[in-house]
Amino acid sequence: MTSHPIATSHVFSTILTALLLLIHSSATATATALPVNVWPKPTSISWSSPYTIATLSPTFQFDSPSSPSNHYLSAAVARYHRLISSERHRPIYDTTTTNFSTSPTPLQSLSISVVDLAAPLIHGVDESYTLSIPNHSATAANLSAATVWGAMRGLETFSQLVWGGRRRVPVGVEIRDAPLFGHRGFLLDTSRNFYPVEDILRTIKAMSHNKMNVFHWHITDSHSFPLELPSEPGLAAKGAYGRGMRYSVADVGRVVQYGYEHGVRVVPEVDTPAHTGSWAGAYPDIITCADKFWWPAGSPWADRLAAEPGTGQLNPLHPKTYEVVGNVINDIASMFPEPFFHGGADEVTPGCWKADPSIQSFLSQQNGTLSQILETFINKTLPIITSHNKTAVYWEDVILAPDVKVNPAVFSPEHTVFQTWNNGPNNTKLLTAAGYRVIVSSWEFYYLDCGHGDFLGNDSQYDRPPTSSDVDSNGDVDSNGGSWCGPYKTWQKVYNYDITHGLSEVEKGRVLGAEVALWSEQADGAVLDARVWPRAAAMAEAMWSGNRDEKGIKRYAEATDRLNEWRYRMVGRGIMAEPIQPLWCLRNPGMCNTVKPFVAQ
Amino acid sequence: MTSHPIATSHVFSTILTALLLLIHSSATATATALPVNVWPKPTSISWSSPYTIATLSPTFQFDSPSSPSNHYLSAAVARYHRLISSERHRPIYDTTTTNFSTSPTPLQSLSISVVDLAAPLIHGVDESYTLSIPNHSATAANLSAATVWGAMRGLETFSQLVWGGRRRVPVGVEIRDAPLFGHRGFLLDTSRNFYPVEDILRTIKAMSHNKMNVFHWHITDSHSFPLELPSEPGLAAKGAYGRGMRYSVADVGRVVQYGYEHGVRVVPEVDTPAHTGSWAGAYPDIITCADKFWWPAGSPWADRLAAEPGTGQLNPLHPKTYEVVGNVINDIASMFPEPFFHGGADEVTPGCWKADPSIQSFLSQQNGTLSQILETFINKTLPIITSHNKTAVYWEDVILAPDVKVNPAVFSPEHTVFQTWNNGPNNTKLLTAAGYRVIVSSWEFYYLDCGHGDFLGNDSQYDRPPTSSDVDSNGDVDSNGGSWCGPYKTWQKVYNYDITHGLSEVEKGRVLGAEVALWSEQADGAVLDARVWPRAAAMAEAMWSGNRDEKGIKRYAEATDRLNEWRYRMVGRGIMAEPIQPLWCLRNPGMCNTVKPFVAQ
Repeated sequence: MTSHPIATSHVFSTILTALLLLIHSSATATATALPVNVWPKPTSISWSSPYTIATLSPTFQFDSPSSPSNHYLSAAVARYHRLISSERHRPIYDTTTTNFSTSPTPLQSLSISVVDLAAPLIHGVDESYTLSIPNHSATAANLSAATVWGAMRGLETFSQLVWGGRRRVPVGVEIRDAPLFGHRGFLLDTSRNFYPVEDILRTIKAMSHNKMNVFHWHITDSHSFPLELPSEPGLAAKGAYGRGMRYSVADVGRVVQYGYEHGVRVVPEVDTPAHTGSWAGAYPDIITCADKFWWPAGSPWADRLAAEPGTGQLNPLHPKTYEVVGNVINDIASMFPEPFFHGGADEVTPGCWKADPSIQSFLSQQNGTLSQILETFINKTLPIITSHNKTAVYWEDVILAPDVKVNPAVFSPEHTVFQTWNNGPNNTKLLTAAGYRVIVSSWEFYYLDCGHGDFLGNDSQYDRPPTSSDVDSNGDVDSNGGSWCGPYKTWQKVYNYDITHGLSEVEKGRVLGAEVALWSEQADGAVLDARVWPRAAAMAEAMWSGNRDEKGIKRYAEATDRLNEWRYRMVGRGIMAEPIQPLWCLRNPGMCNTVKPFVAQ
Repeated sequence: MTSHPIATSHVFSTILTALLLLIHSSATATATALPVNVWPKPTSISWSSPYTIATLSPTFQFDSPSSPSNHYLSAAVARYHRLISSERHRPIYDTTTTNFSTSPTPLQSLSISVVDLAAPLIHGVDESYTLSIPNHSATAANLSAATVWGAMRGLETFSQLVWGGRRRVPVGVEIRDAPLFGHRGFLLDTSRNFYPVEDILRTIKAMSHNKMNVFHWHITDSHSFPLELPSEPGLAAKGAYGRGMRYSVADVGRVVQYGYEHGVRVVPEVDTPAHTGSWAGAYPDIITCADKFWWPAGSPWADRLAAEPGTGQLNPLHPKTYEVVGNVINDIASMFPEPFFHGGADEVTPGCWKADPSIQSFLSQQNGTLSQILETFINKTLPIITSHNKTAVYWEDVILAPDVKVNPAVFSPEHTVFQTWNNGPNNTKLLTAAGYRVIVSSWEFYYLDCGHGDFLGNDSQYDRPPTSSDVDSNGDVDSNGGSWCGPYKTWQKVYNYDITHGLSEVEKGRVLGAEVALWSEQADGAVLDARVWPRAAAMAEAMWSGNRDEKGIKRYAEATDRLNEWRYRMVGRGIMAEPIQPLWCLRNPGMCNTVKPFVAQ
């Protein structure tokens, strides 16, 4: 799709005049109006008059004395130097057509100072920074950060202050910035469909541009096991989609390293005990209901064998299970330095365990319940995770599921984090009230895959007589388009979600942050960028500086033009993000608004 | 996104064994089970036992004596020779693991015979062909067609019978094929957002792979006027998004030529008299309500100035209007040899004309109604279209709109075709019953842009307290996701639509065919392929050989695996189509089906 960059540059070479209008409107609207747009919007940003623009010196450089001693910082500095050198993007502003003064002297350098070069990239690390670009551009601009990771955020901000053509940057700028939430993530499911490593790296790069810092890698599931493990080579050999569709140890190392260089933690998830059908190729004995039809004809939903096609759950009563799971956890713990380890534990389906003879006899002999069987699994595997000094992350289901769930006493708040995905903010409330730390991924707001229909075959719901009497008010067979989690989550819906809604201050303190998720039943590399961007960027700003203005009013209206313009810069950087409006709307600020008040049904 | 072809080849190098299962199941299911999948499915296809596979000779060639005398045929032959030579796709079948016999002699050539080399590419041209690949592959395979265009369809079929690696093809195959509908189109809106010529060419190529034959080019609208016209250079100079975002006369010639070489007609639409805001840059005098806010605050929907942001309609009372429209029509008539000319005429908004002083006085002086004003416009412009021996195509609105519409007597069935988009099949019934020919583009089934939310700014509908009590059963603010035409139209919904539902035989004869449409408020080159494919392919098969099996039963279930596999071949050919299922579903035929019966609400 080589035509896009070309198209993009055209866009910018032609976008200038009209865009002038835009910044005027927003300049009057906010005190911090800059000639360029920084996404996510910094916490505090000021541009003091006389509003002045400087060019970047042809010999512009980053002055970073401490870089040599830190590989990740030096890699970031080199990367941003390349990015700024090749930046062609023009902001929603044209200084050439304004009366803003131009500095006689080009900006020579940005000096970077980091207090603590040793601070590791872990949850809660200080990502704050201050960026100062003096009005007298003869003197160097200054980026100060407590850590390497904060410096990377500041470098990203600086890169977005620069625009292409003759490289220019506003001077007299002071930015003080830090994130509201420490966990700003994206989940990618690489089991239902495979993604080449290049797609993952490109996504991590895009995350860093949006100051996101957690790549939640849902590596395995029932559909494929693409991860090659030294102690359990059979799992990928038998469970991957194929030789070319596996992640080698070297691939994982590349992703992890790339993550550090971009300030993005890579949190691995190997979902257990459910969602393990792909393990059956190597270990048929330890997987219950493997390769069965997921929902036997005529049987009620309650008797299904899995949440969707692709059956199979680890058998907690089989000793071999723990040998294999132990090897898997140990390998992954060493492959991923990240302190968080995601154990999954979502959607344990009763029917699948009940279909297994050993579990049947266990139940019939009154030895215990399915919940106790799950508890046995957790009690035997959680210690393996914590033995590596990892914090275990589990999906909320493991203690909130209606049927099969574990006694919360099993999970200590110090070693366990829960990820919520059901019931909007209510489950977040339940878990934080119980003292647990929470990562929010509510499907109603953050599931990026939803809204493209259902993937099931032989589905009669889409076949109805096309007479209007048979078609509902949406002209559709069912109003969410047939996907359980439809409709599509718009960027505004993502942006507006308040993840701490209804929480006390103490409870709010237990919300680590959020993740948008791309489950891959109907996604792969062909659609990755457009499915994720710019909607993940909408969450990124909400998690970094919030979704409200200084007055506490939701700022989605003001954010529209900024996100639209940021989308174009992302495309220019090689991320094929979705357009959110006609270009005409950027050219005609405010003209694409609606005055229709929302009427609650 | 260079990683995709790699990913794709991986997919196929690893897909083979399991796919064997699939063909077994379908082989038992249908009599015409071939080792390869041809999309759209041919009308009649047989493979006689002993089922035999032959390799293509390294010196395989197309023997096409008449090619030299027809540029389009020779271009197609050369193209398919290249495609077959570079084909890497492996079908849902692995002959190496079956007992099918392999022919000792490779297939040497396909000889192509065309009866009428002069038949032009116009609606209704004979696209039938027969393809015969003898069991004794020493003898040449045979492709016979009445016209060059039918030969192109047969070449496409042959290319899909060949698979990569060691190039192989089934022999003992007889195919007799012809389309159910002569008009199988795709509409692209290049005004709301711009598409580089390369995107249009790639789309036309993908259309030819799906035997689609009409590219409906909605070139201009209120948002931009990207078409450079010799007689009216000001329209693009003032109305295009920018210098790099225009189609030159040479660009149009390239698209038209490329279309002919692929058997795809290029039907131009310049929407008038509404949707012409972009004309105001060059001619402010002839555009009413130009550059106004589309829906004044507090005013009722009935008083809006346009259907969406981007106002402006040609003023039928201004003499200059006809001078400009005349020049536009004359230029376009000569730039596009295609006999159909689309005049638009949709969504004339009363408020926009009522806002104009000249029209206000016309109305106040009882000189006529808005409908009569529209009729004046049609009466003065339709003859210009027909003077070029063009068939005028209009949107249904021009005679079916509730408010502003024209007396049907103005339109003769011989010179006019209507395109329906509202009210499912009901408007098709109305128009065909009145004797008109119809092209079906019902938004409820065929609008590919729908389901991604609304593009309006400052839209409060997406901001509600995220408590479950405030969230409806879909967890959403409103169940169609906020876009007027949501939800997303799934491939199944597109596939199942019976465009002649409820019509008499005579009325059915007046349905030329159908078009899926991509309106571009939220689309541009970054998302083009995934928005269009494989859903347009679903319509393509329904229009070519239908959506039912030999018994008249809807065949969406059987089509799922075929479309899934075809999607992968399209990706291999450089079309970044959406995945419709986990790869696991292709590996495990039938296992992704649902047994849930559809329950009408």
